[in-house]
Amino acid sequence: MSLALDPAAQDLLFREAHTAQKFSPEPVTEEQLRAIHDLVKFGPTAFNQSPLRVTLVQSPEARERLVALLSDGNKAKTASAPVTAILSADAEFHQELDVLLPAIPGAKDMFFSERPVRERSALSNAQLQAAYFIIGVRAAGLAAGPMTGGDMEGIRKEFLDDDHLPLMVVNIGRIAEEEGAHHPRAPRLSYEQVFTTV
Amino acid sequence: MSLALDPAAQDLLFREAHTAQKFSPEPVTEEQLRAIHDLVKFGPTAFNQSPLRVTLVQSPEARERLVALLSDGNKAKTASAPVTAILSADAEFHQELDVLLPAIPGAKDMFFSERPVRERSALSNAQLQAAYFIIGVRAAGLAAGPMTGGDMEGIRKEFLDDDHLPLMVVNIGRIAEEEGAHHPRAPRLSYEQVFTTV
Repeated sequence: MSLALDPAAQDLLFREAHTAQKFSPEPVTEEQLRAIHDLVKFGPTAFNQSPLRVTLVQSPEARERLVALLSDGNKAKTASAPVTAILSADAEFHQELDVLLPAIPGAKDMFFSERPVRERSALSNAQLQAAYFIIGVRAAGLAAGPMTGGDMEGIRKEFLDDDHLPLMVVNIGRIAEEEGAHHPRAPRLSYEQVFTTV
Repeated sequence: MSLALDPAAQDLLFREAHTAQKFSPEPVTEEQLRAIHDLVKFGPTAFNQSPLRVTLVQSPEARERLVALLSDGNKAKTASAPVTAILSADAEFHQELDVLLPAIPGAKDMFFSERPVRERSALSNAQLQAAYFIIGVRAAGLAAGPMTGGDMEGIRKEFLDDDHLPLMVVNIGRIAEEEGAHHPRAPRLSYEQVFTTV
């Protein structure tokens, strides 16, 4: 074995984890969501900018408004997920940098005074954190169902504001124990297809 | 404990992991890099598009060319890292979709016939995979040192081609056991600062 991570953890996070298509009705607790955050908040971002924001859609009324904006193939599973989260990038993340980056006083104004720079940086770093978040959901023994189709601009208008750029919507819950709860594992690229050496 | 992942794995991947500033001279083996790939290749991407590509910079000559294109603060640590990887997004990822996505024959032409659509999709999905890759490096008991500063367009011209969009450069190795091998842990945002509920 070339990995230090134990095989059970490899299975939980990657090998046996699947994007969920059906969830059990068991609720996701706030305690679980806090535990996920308290783990994945340590994942690295450039300048520790930590731009990911999470909007939990929980009330039946809000759920209904969200489902209407998703693509048809995602409506039923989202309606039945215990929790659905809208992940977004905060283009005003620099307001927190004095606290997040004490090693570089003034980084906020030195590097991030321009909005287009912040938007680019927030989008790419929040996308890293979206991946940490998916791993964190799995670390909690839950399954994630990330979705990028649908009317993302509509989702922004309905649930976010001009400072938050939507990345994806993620259903969260315990995966159903039944046929079709996840798709069969699709092939992956080989090491040789992905890696080259110079 | 609200997480299913055991505490040792939590520490290895997140709590005790740090972006490395100094590496031990111990080499990183191809076996380790293959094991990382064989784990993180299972991380989810939209349509299983798997657009991340990894260019390992190993020859002293190539290393020198890369170091010249990095920002000053990143030159010394990159020169001393056992392996440095350029992570990029393959804008022609759709060429592999017939294999990667057998469930949707023709997805390549249905969804990804236009280059700008592919570039946007490749960038955001490869960025997710960059996060899985960082987690994978840590799963191998190694430390990652991701860097986004420097002359990325120069790196593209020197090491990639027009179809590959550079995301970041990552130093990989065992973290040095000495003062300054990593920065002190910086603060993180609270659950309340990141999560809202509707």
